[in-house]
Amino acid sequence: MIKLVALVRRRPDLTHEAFADYWVDVHAPLAAAIPGMRGYRINIAGDPGDMPEAPYHGSAEIYFDDRASMVAGLASPENDIAAKDTDNFLESVTFLVTDEHVILPKDRP
Amino acid sequence: MIKLVALVRRRPDLTHEAFADYWVDVHAPLAAAIPGMRGYRINIAGDPGDMPEAPYHGSAEIYFDDRASMVAGLASPENDIAAKDTDNFLESVTFLVTDEHVILPKDRP
Repeated sequence: MIKLVALVRRRPDLTHEAFADYWVDVHAPLAAAIPGMRGYRINIAGDPGDMPEAPYHGSAEIYFDDRASMVAGLASPENDIAAKDTDNFLESVTFLVTDEHVILPKDRP
Repeated sequence: MIKLVALVRRRPDLTHEAFADYWVDVHAPLAAAIPGMRGYRINIAGDPGDMPEAPYHGSAEIYFDDRASMVAGLASPENDIAAKDTDNFLESVTFLVTDEHVILPKDRP
């Protein structure tokens, strides 16, 4: 598996709630249609409490079987549609392309 | 559930391999001992290909049952040990405290 980690900043003209609702309700189904996508989780940032805060409004994790599947998925017409849609709610999105190590839970790789 | 997303930069005096090995082999068991931690995944960044790259060497996802469990876990002696250990391989770590939405796979919340 290969795992994309996306770090996003919302469009400054949107409220946090409008940003979150758009991502989950409108953008997510478009992104989930990208061929070969095996997993997709959206993380909406809230109150950081006492933690040193990273300068983003949310992140996502996106899984493909391997790098070739990722490259093919990102070259698809479905990805073009999803990528264009990010202009509707994001100011920026940057990525890490990662290998995942599941530490916990120990019984679920 | 509440989900911490950690964004890390490695110590510049470490190779990428030494950083990755230390995190997975030495730091992960210390962090996994923090009371109340329900899930812990480590993502080691590699070749970003054509993607616009975020300025980090890796990220992690850490789950607790709720915010109270997270606060208690981060106030534990086990967290003190894990937090001190980050000096051995990280230059910086910042966080998002998030709500997760699982979009795919549809059958695994």
